Amino acid sequence: MKVAKFGGTSVASAEQIKKVAAIVADDSERKVIVVSAPGKRYSDDTKVTDLLIALGEAYLEKGEAEAELQAVVSRYEDIADGLDLGKEIVATIEADLRDRLTFDRNRPESLMDLIKASGEDNNAKLIADYFQRIGLNATYLNPQDAGLLVSDEPGNAQVLPETFEHLEKLRDSDEVIVFPGFFGYSKEGTLVTFPRGGSDITGSIVAAGTKADLYENFTDVDSVFAANPNVVDNPVKIKKMTYREMRELSYAGFSVFHDEALIPAFRNRIPVCVKNTNNPASTGTMIISEREYFLSPVIGIAADEGFATIYVRKYLMNREVGFGRKLLQILEDEGLSYEHMPSGIDDTSVIVRQHQLTAEIEERIIDRIQKELCVDDVYFEHDFSMVMIVGEGMHNTVGVSARATAALARASVNIEMINQGSSEVSLVLGVHAEDTDRAVRELYQEFFGGADESIE
Amino acid sequence: MKVAKFGGTSVASAEQIKKVAAIVADDSERKVIVVSAPGKRYSDDTKVTDLLIALGEAYLEKGEAEAELQAVVSRYEDIADGLDLGKEIVATIEADLRDRLTFDRNRPESLMDLIKASGEDNNAKLIADYFQRIGLNATYLNPQDAGLLVSDEPGNAQVLPETFEHLEKLRDSDEVIVFPGFFGYSKEGTLVTFPRGGSDITGSIVAAGTKADLYENFTDVDSVFAANPNVVDNPVKIKKMTYREMRELSYAGFSVFHDEALIPAFRNRIPVCVKNTNNPASTGTMIISEREYFLSPVIGIAADEGFATIYVRKYLMNREVGFGRKLLQILEDEGLSYEHMPSGIDDTSVIVRQHQLTAEIEERIIDRIQKELCVDDVYFEHDFSMVMIVGEGMHNTVGVSARATAALARASVNIEMINQGSSEVSLVLGVHAEDTDRAVRELYQEFFGGADESIE
Repeated sequence: MKVAKFGGTSVASAEQIKKVAAIVADDSERKVIVVSAPGKRYSDDTKVTDLLIALGEAYLEKGEAEAELQAVVSRYEDIADGLDLGKEIVATIEADLRDRLTFDRNRPESLMDLIKASGEDNNAKLIADYFQRIGLNATYLNPQDAGLLVSDEPGNAQVLPETFEHLEKLRDSDEVIVFPGFFGYSKEGTLVTFPRGGSDITGSIVAAGTKADLYENFTDVDSVFAANPNVVDNPVKIKKMTYREMRELSYAGFSVFHDEALIPAFRNRIPVCVKNTNNPASTGTMIISEREYFLSPVIGIAADEGFATIYVRKYLMNREVGFGRKLLQILEDEGLSYEHMPSGIDDTSVIVRQHQLTAEIEERIIDRIQKELCVDDVYFEHDFSMVMIVGEGMHNTVGVSARATAALARASVNIEMINQGSSEVSLVLGVHAEDTDRAVRELYQEFFGGADESIE
Repeated sequence: MKVAKFGGTSVASAEQIKKVAAIVADDSERKVIVVSAPGKRYSDDTKVTDLLIALGEAYLEKGEAEAELQAVVSRYEDIADGLDLGKEIVATIEADLRDRLTFDRNRPESLMDLIKASGEDNNAKLIADYFQRIGLNATYLNPQDAGLLVSDEPGNAQVLPETFEHLEKLRDSDEVIVFPGFFGYSKEGTLVTFPRGGSDITGSIVAAGTKADLYENFTDVDSVFAANPNVVDNPVKIKKMTYREMRELSYAGFSVFHDEALIPAFRNRIPVCVKNTNNPASTGTMIISEREYFLSPVIGIAADEGFATIYVRKYLMNREVGFGRKLLQILEDEGLSYEHMPSGIDDTSVIVRQHQLTAEIEERIIDRIQKELCVDDVYFEHDFSMVMIVGEGMHNTVGVSARATAALARASVNIEMINQGSSEVSLVLGVHAEDTDRAVRELYQEFFGGADESIE
């Protein structure tokens, strides 16, 4: 059986939900359908989740939010009209929303979670209603009834281990189950939402719990591309990639999934397929545990801006047991996470995401490094990009780094940093921010120039 | 004025000491001459320092060591005979040795230091005697009289800061000062020896204290070469290099100096010149603070074997503030120093010198990493080499890494690790041990093939 998750744009309108129904009807293996709240219908549209946040905030501030509530109801009304569902489902949704507002206002975070989650929850009820109306044997299932238990951290739910056992019984359902994404329930019965990427998390948990043969993730793109289409013209489509490749690429701006969303599927080795609701005939991109990589050692080129480096030099640094640890401790004390730490013999650089820094933080860090580590030199540099070449085959292919560095030399891009771990699933090249796009284009040309439309 | 230090082979015999005298006589700027103990005269000869260690150990064990003492006296006798110095100096040296043996046997480490240091001390007395005999205005100076004060750690003396002030007055001496290397005195008046490279340390301290215009270090090679002559045929000579380049090269097997020896010279920006006692006309290699690097961005290729890597993989590792610091803490708890820490997104490798490891240590480390860091995978790999390309010009030269990686691809050497810090004075390439020499030769060919006999 398959678990299929449909994202916000896939369920944003009646027209889109009809496509979803056709996709579900087309394959009887699609047994659990996880749905998001209605997303944007056009680029400057407002998502229902954002309407709900406005509703919750207004209500908490003023004690009423009738206009905001009507804006939400109106979105469902449009969808219900377009699907010829009549007024009953809309009345049910409006009553549900009013009921949520009666929750204890002394627990504002849980109240917000309850309101936000209504977007997915009511959309699932509406979609189940539509499925039934067109003759699909479908039913809405509430996460509480399914046993999707989570920790009681509003907006940051973590799934509890027993959930997976509870969900296993969904395998045996005769009906198509329509399941709302984004939230679960604490053991005490409080609704709690997941962090960012919430519906993807639900889909991944359900796929893992039901031991699905496939977790299909329907979005609005045909596949994952080997490079950012905003930088490279018509990049090739990736047919197959591994979890590790997906993760390395997503680090540097490939936003297919929120990374954490895939953990349950990943830990249970459930294959994931990214597909397009608007073009379901396209094969999409499979994300799997392992792949053959003879033909394509490199799977993608990604880049992300906004990095800074802390450069530290001290004569005989490498003799000093504990130096690197103390340096990282200073950053940790400031709450900074670091990305890489390339080093020579007597110098080392720590690369961090720049958004974590302020002039005061930098000053404090430099001051502590000077005083506590007695270094010869320490300074910050800003505005670097990390360009990543990712591929499972890199480890066993002589010359990938040679081709990469030659490409950057051709493009007159100075390499400020090279970091290749012993896993060699990725090669990270630090460049100045202004060189980023030139670097990505030249690397794409080197590794994918003349390739077919898609690679695997 | 110049401080000239002569190493063990330069003062191993009468013939060698005559060369030293000629060198000193040739330049009146050579005001302080730091000397080692007599070294090897031929490849399977025994250094006087090793004879002295045997003497000390035998004496501590048996309470007498007459045969060992005679072996030492005999070496000085040979030298004195060859220099026509007569019996008096040899009698003085023998009396001095017997006097040292009367030191408190309940302080065996200090007794050993006293015996070992006699090698340099008596050689300085002998050489000063010879200098006077041939008409040089020369005098022996004891480090205690000169004020060379050190910490009281037998075999591991650290210079005390006031030493540099004390030594400044040597600048004004009318006589050529012959100064024994390898030891100083604690504030309580105990003789203490320096760690490995001891006479180089003395020379560097004296050069810094006297604010010498040049610190000449006389050895038995014409210059520093751009690669190991045992691996590359007739490598080019390096005319000028910076302290940083010297340090990076010496990390990977370029054993010109023991690294720590140069610190005092380095901190005081005293230029250092490596010269050959057997060929003083050769210009040698200058080691300076800064150099022009337009013509030769790369100054040398070095390599060292015996590295192991600890590979660690954990999904979402890079989100975890403190992960790298905790990993290094575990190594630190085992007393391990690490060399590099290249990282991808969800994996990181820590490269350590293999000699620090045993099966038990590896097991404990893996166990702690698994339990405390909850990683997905952790293992050791052994027998890597670090190949280093060193040069001040690398930072500003596009394409050095491209040329390096292309060279290794040509030689079919797989690159296991690349580490280039933001300083870019070096590029470190991790390769399998068996590929080391092939990598060095191909890199030498790439960066020095067709070069003149020497570079600067």
